Amino acid sequence: MQDSIQNYMQQVGTQARQASSVLMSAPTHLKNHALSAIYTALENNQAQILAANQIDMNNGRQRQLDNALLDRLELTPARFKGMLQGLKDVINLIDPIGEITDLAYRPSGIQLGKMRVPLGVIGMIYESRPNVTLEAASLALKSGNAIILRGGSEALESNKAIAIAIQHALQMSGLPEHAVQVIDTPDRAAVGHLITMTEYVDVIVPRGGKSLIERISQEARIPVIKHLDGNCHVFVEAQADLQKALPIALNAKTHRYGVCNAMETLLVDEAIAEEFLPRIAELYAEKQVELRGCPETQRILGVSVKTATDEDWYTEYLGPILAVKVVTGMNEAIQHINKYGSHHTDAIITENFSLAREFLARVDSSSVMINASTRFADGFEYGLGAEIGISTDKIHARGPVGLEGLTSQKWVVFGDGQIRQ
Amino acid sequence: MQDSIQNYMQQVGTQARQASSVLMSAPTHLKNHALSAIYTALENNQAQILAANQIDMNNGRQRQLDNALLDRLELTPARFKGMLQGLKDVINLIDPIGEITDLAYRPSGIQLGKMRVPLGVIGMIYESRPNVTLEAASLALKSGNAIILRGGSEALESNKAIAIAIQHALQMSGLPEHAVQVIDTPDRAAVGHLITMTEYVDVIVPRGGKSLIERISQEARIPVIKHLDGNCHVFVEAQADLQKALPIALNAKTHRYGVCNAMETLLVDEAIAEEFLPRIAELYAEKQVELRGCPETQRILGVSVKTATDEDWYTEYLGPILAVKVVTGMNEAIQHINKYGSHHTDAIITENFSLAREFLARVDSSSVMINASTRFADGFEYGLGAEIGISTDKIHARGPVGLEGLTSQKWVVFGDGQIRQ
Repeated sequence: MQDSIQNYMQQVGTQARQASSVLMSAPTHLKNHALSAIYTALENNQAQILAANQIDMNNGRQRQLDNALLDRLELTPARFKGMLQGLKDVINLIDPIGEITDLAYRPSGIQLGKMRVPLGVIGMIYESRPNVTLEAASLALKSGNAIILRGGSEALESNKAIAIAIQHALQMSGLPEHAVQVIDTPDRAAVGHLITMTEYVDVIVPRGGKSLIERISQEARIPVIKHLDGNCHVFVEAQADLQKALPIALNAKTHRYGVCNAMETLLVDEAIAEEFLPRIAELYAEKQVELRGCPETQRILGVSVKTATDEDWYTEYLGPILAVKVVTGMNEAIQHINKYGSHHTDAIITENFSLAREFLARVDSSSVMINASTRFADGFEYGLGAEIGISTDKIHARGPVGLEGLTSQKWVVFGDGQIRQ
Repeated sequence: MQDSIQNYMQQVGTQARQASSVLMSAPTHLKNHALSAIYTALENNQAQILAANQIDMNNGRQRQLDNALLDRLELTPARFKGMLQGLKDVINLIDPIGEITDLAYRPSGIQLGKMRVPLGVIGMIYESRPNVTLEAASLALKSGNAIILRGGSEALESNKAIAIAIQHALQMSGLPEHAVQVIDTPDRAAVGHLITMTEYVDVIVPRGGKSLIERISQEARIPVIKHLDGNCHVFVEAQADLQKALPIALNAKTHRYGVCNAMETLLVDEAIAEEFLPRIAELYAEKQVELRGCPETQRILGVSVKTATDEDWYTEYLGPILAVKVVTGMNEAIQHINKYGSHHTDAIITENFSLAREFLARVDSSSVMINASTRFADGFEYGLGAEIGISTDKIHARGPVGLEGLTSQKWVVFGDGQIRQ
C-alpha cells in the first residue's frame, strides 16, 4: 500500500512537472481561455457541486464536526456566486508572467533586467473550505504554475465535484490536463510524499489549523508559504482621534470573529485610557464581547473585567473575547506587539505624524496600519483578486499572497557579443 | 559540552535578535557611519589581518588542503584592496530599507503600499574565503539585519582578525555590538543549532562545497538561500553571428575555470556546426581545453574528441573540460538545458528576434542571456555592489543575491478612520 501511494505520488509529480514546462510559457490568452472555460463548467455544474457539498455536510454532522468547521465547509448558493466572482476577478487580473522590469545598461554594455516567471509546481494542502480548490487552481493557472491539490477528507465530495468541472474545462481548452491535479486518496501518506518530493514540487502552501501547518512545516523538505496565527493589535495612541478610534476598535474586533485579521488585543495609551476605555467598553458590551484587562484597565472599567494573564497576550481568541492593556506610550506598545504578536497585522490610531511614521518602521508585522481597521488585511481588500493564503513568514511572500507570490523573477541579459574582461 | 554549545548558541541567538530590533529601524546615516568605521578599522589593521591569513595558509599547507581551496583562502594585498573597495561600494549603495512602493488608494478608501524591511537575523555558513566575512557583514548591516557568521576552521585566524576590526568599529559607532557575531568554536554542533534556532534566525545563507550546502539544506529548519552547482550552457543557434559566438564561447569557458558561471556544455545547432565547431575547437586547443562530444561533434572534429556520456551532460567540471553537443534546433537545446542544467545561467547566441524571445521565456534558469557571456552572472557585474551568494532556488531570491535579497516587504495601510464594511 505504501509503495502504491509512493508510485501514485511520483506519477502525479511527474505529470505536474511536465504540465509546468508547458504552462511556463503559455500565452495569456490561452490561460484566460482555460479560466473562462472553467467558469462556464462550474456555472453549468452548480447543482451537482452543491449536492456533493450537502453530502459532505451530512457526513460532517454525523461525524459531529464542530460548528466553525461545518460553517467553513458549507457551499451556499451565495458562496458559490462569490467563488465564481473570485474566478472572474482572476481572469481580469493582469498576467504577471513575462513582465520585464528594471531593464538598464551596465558599464560592461550588457542590458540587465528582471523577468517575472512562474515558480513551477505548487503543492496545496488545505482543510474544509471547498472554494479553496477553485481559488488555488485559478491563481496557479493564471500565474503559469501547475498545482497539486490535497483537500481535507471532510470536503472530499465537494472538492471532487469542483475538480471534475475544472479538469473537463482544461481538457477542452488546450492547456495540459495535469495542470490541476486533485489527490483523491484519503491516505495521509500522500501528504508525506507531497511535501518531500523536491524534484517535482517547488513550493507548499498549507491552509488550515495551526497544528496541520506546524506539522507540515516541520516535515517539509520543500519551501512552505505558511500562515500560522493572527494575533492582531490596535494601539490607541494618546493623540488618537476618538471619532476614528472607536469605530476602528469596534470593527477590528466585532466585524467577524473567526478570522485571522480580527483584533485580539487592544492597547491604549494611559493618557487617553480614562476617556476612551469606558466608551469603547460600552460598545463591546452591546456586542457581548468579554474583556480581559490589565490591572489599570480593571481599575478604570471596574471589576466586571476579568484579569488578563500573560497567556492572554499570546492568544488568538477567534471569538468574542478581547484582551485590553493600558500602556505608558509608543515604546511599550511596540515592544508588546513585537513580543506577543504573531507579526500578522497591527494598527495604530493617532493624529501624530512622527509617531505614525515610527510605528510603521518599528512594528515587525506583515501589515502595519495607521488609522484603519486590521480587518482590511486580506487579498480581496488589497486588490490581489484572490489570495492563495496569508503568509506570516518573511521569506519570499509576506501577508496576503496572490498571483505575485506564486511567481519568481529571473535575470535577463541582452547583449551584442559582450564578453567578461 | 553539548549543553554548553547549546547555551552558547542560544545566547548568540538572543543577542542577535536584540540587535536586530534596533537595526531594523536604524537610520541610513548611522548604518553608513558604522560601515565607514569598519573601513577605517580594516585599513588600520591590514598588516595584522594579512599576518593572520598567513597563519591559516601555513596551517592549510600542513594539512595538505588542495590548491583550489588554498587559493580561495589566501588574502593578498590586492584582494584586501578589492575587499575594501567592495565595502566602499556597499556604503555607496542606496539604502533599500523603508522604501515604500506602489502606494495607491483602494476602493475602500485605504491607501495601500509595500515597505521594504530587513529579514531580521541572518545565519551565514561558509568555507575558506575570508573576504566573505566582510562582504556578508557589510551587506547585512546596510540592509538592517543582524548576522551570525560561521566560517570554516581553515580560515579561523583570518576571520577572527577581520571580526575584531568589525566589532571594534561597531562599538565605536553606536550600533549594537552584537549586530555582527562570529562563532568562534570549531565545534560542528554549533552549525546544527544555528540552522534550527527558528526563534532567533530568519534565513540561512550557506556558501561552500555542494556537500556542505546539501547537508545544511537537509537539516535546516530555517529557510535557506542556497547555491548548488552551476552547470551553464551556451547555445549557438543556426542564425548566430559567429563574430559574437566565437568570443563568447571562448570567454564563457576559459575566462576563469573554477567559477559557477563558467560554461560547462556547449550546444551547437546542426545547421551551423560544420562551420562553427572547427573554428571554436581551434581556440579551445590553444587553451588546452579538453572536449567531450556527442557522436556528431566527433564526426566533425575527429577522433581526438572524447565521447561524452550522459554523466558529462550533468557535470560541472570547474576546469578546462567542455562537453559539446550538436542539436537539431531550439527545442532540443531548451530541453537539454532544462533537463541537464542546474538552472543557473544559460545563453543563446542568435540574431533571430523570435527565437531569442522564445529562449528567454522557456529556459528555466536564474539568468538567461542573449548574445552575452555567462560569466556576467555575478553580483558585481549586475551592479548589486556585493553579493552574499548566488541562489539556485526559485523562492525568495534567484541568481546573485545582494542587498535586496536580504530584505522583505511588508504591507502598509494609511487611512483616516476606515472600517471594513
